[in-house]
Amino acid sequence: MSVTLKDIARKTNLSVTTVSLVLNKKPCRVSENTRDLILKTAEEMNYYPNQLAVGLVKQQTNTVGLIIPDISNHFYSNLALGIDAEMNSHNKNIILLNTDFDAGKLVRGINVLKSRGVDAIILTAASLSPKNLSLYSDLIRSVSVPVITVDHYYPELNCSAVQLNNRKGAYIAVKHLINYGHTDIACITGPKHSTVTLERLEGYRLAMKEAGLPLPEKYMFCGNYRQEGGAKAAEEILQSTKATAIFSFNDVMAMGACQTLKKHSISIPDDISIVGFDNIDFSGMLAVPLTTVNQPAYEIGQEAARQALQEIAHPGVEKRTITFEPHLIIRDSTKARAAVKD
Amino acid sequence: MSVTLKDIARKTNLSVTTVSLVLNKKPCRVSENTRDLILKTAEEMNYYPNQLAVGLVKQQTNTVGLIIPDISNHFYSNLALGIDAEMNSHNKNIILLNTDFDAGKLVRGINVLKSRGVDAIILTAASLSPKNLSLYSDLIRSVSVPVITVDHYYPELNCSAVQLNNRKGAYIAVKHLINYGHTDIACITGPKHSTVTLERLEGYRLAMKEAGLPLPEKYMFCGNYRQEGGAKAAEEILQSTKATAIFSFNDVMAMGACQTLKKHSISIPDDISIVGFDNIDFSGMLAVPLTTVNQPAYEIGQEAARQALQEIAHPGVEKRTITFEPHLIIRDSTKARAAVKD
Repeated sequence: MSVTLKDIARKTNLSVTTVSLVLNKKPCRVSENTRDLILKTAEEMNYYPNQLAVGLVKQQTNTVGLIIPDISNHFYSNLALGIDAEMNSHNKNIILLNTDFDAGKLVRGINVLKSRGVDAIILTAASLSPKNLSLYSDLIRSVSVPVITVDHYYPELNCSAVQLNNRKGAYIAVKHLINYGHTDIACITGPKHSTVTLERLEGYRLAMKEAGLPLPEKYMFCGNYRQEGGAKAAEEILQSTKATAIFSFNDVMAMGACQTLKKHSISIPDDISIVGFDNIDFSGMLAVPLTTVNQPAYEIGQEAARQALQEIAHPGVEKRTITFEPHLIIRDSTKARAAVKD
Repeated sequence: MSVTLKDIARKTNLSVTTVSLVLNKKPCRVSENTRDLILKTAEEMNYYPNQLAVGLVKQQTNTVGLIIPDISNHFYSNLALGIDAEMNSHNKNIILLNTDFDAGKLVRGINVLKSRGVDAIILTAASLSPKNLSLYSDLIRSVSVPVITVDHYYPELNCSAVQLNNRKGAYIAVKHLINYGHTDIACITGPKHSTVTLERLEGYRLAMKEAGLPLPEKYMFCGNYRQEGGAKAAEEILQSTKATAIFSFNDVMAMGACQTLKKHSISIPDDISIVGFDNIDFSGMLAVPLTTVNQPAYEIGQEAARQALQEIAHPGVEKRTITFEPHLIIRDSTKARAAVKD
């Protein structure tokens, strides 16, 4: 049974009105002792206001929905932690839905949050396809609370967005390999319809083009942002290219690629250099610590939460796009290309 | 605006009744073509039943609450994935709350789920203290839907539980070190009030006692199941013991300990052997692949979800405790103790 204001009033021998005023932080003339007694009793009795009732009065549910594609990927779990920390410090709870990179689950997730009532939705729209963008755009417009997109950015959705400069991230990663003398640089991308993939592809292409290097299609391998996708792509790279370097569009796929190379007794970085993307927690602790592009997942999450809180508190406030700048973290998985023997 | 049955009826030129019968999978005499048309139109128009209305009729919300302590720990994110997969295949969504190992947030989480309405709660009660157990027990009893505890096990809570045989896991980890000739074995525990900690401590003590080895208190270091806790405990181990082996109560703390040892140029396993617990994804890919106790997080999650689904479908069904058995995965972080020079 839930503890009510009445229970606390009975226990403290005070009026329900006094208890209510103190617990709802309304101005009232009670002594410090009485106030302390009420607060202590409420805590002891595990008092918790009925959120539905509170929500009806305040028109707020104190709950924010978060939709992410893969909770087991450290980038997304750290993003979720950042959002959770910021929301918690504002007494808001997170409802987290995992889409498994599935567009159907994303739509279902938005509808679930819509039908349950949340104060805002923070959305990683990793699985939107451009083909269906207007459908999603309609769906998101039908949500009556603020929607913030994070990680993936779609101007068409007309939402505030927090993202990384992915183009620059890919550019500095590939530039680093080129500076090390590599010319045959394969890349392991994510699904082709993802904006993050497209932006990183642009950065890869730009760096190659700037250096006057060819861009053969057969050096681009489609992954899925998961470990097994990276492992599979690396098999194909070994079979069909002469790559001396690999740029993987995230660390998790880079780890899969490292496993494939190890299986074939190919040394990193002596035979093949590899660069990842994200700088997830363990990337520096691998057998060969991974050179990677840093993406501040926790901070991106915090910023998205702050923007959501802003839009909850001030409906109609200007929408913003906040872009974090990446930097390269050079570890042991990359080195200068060995002189070519002719 | 949400799409309704009426909208689909209008679009297909069929009656609302026919559309409703087909979409709700009720028996009705319509042709295959008509059925297909309705389903296709519903999909195209992005139809989604109003969950609150459905919930009111069915007395179910199709949502299950999940409370876990640290979403950034791979053990918990894989547990969540297993639960999510099983629930999704039964068309149920997950509301996930992260407690940050904070008892206050755990209580708040239960209350949030209670007040919002879910069909069941799956709970990792990592932060309950025995002192307050009756309080928590009352709180959980006040929840009118099934509650399943996972990972941490408290018989007092009178819930179905899915857990690992932690005592045996710790026993085989320490036994392995003893078989390798180690006698000075330090351990890095979790918080003392956690049942998982207490069970693993028992296993450690049992193995040491069986081998006739002393159990000095100063070889037991209290961690927090986080990386920095493991790193700190390892500093203390180096300063105050002559340990040649460390048993860390989870992999994440073991990774922190590895970083400390590396900083001090202490070789694993030549100078110090180390065993972890959980077998999280990256433990085999570390600079020194980690010997660890396997805990099938995904399967534990699936099993907890199945039990919850059972209890939702058949209220009053017998409560069960399901225990998974651990096994040791021997990698490179442990080796036989070097002969002692006298």
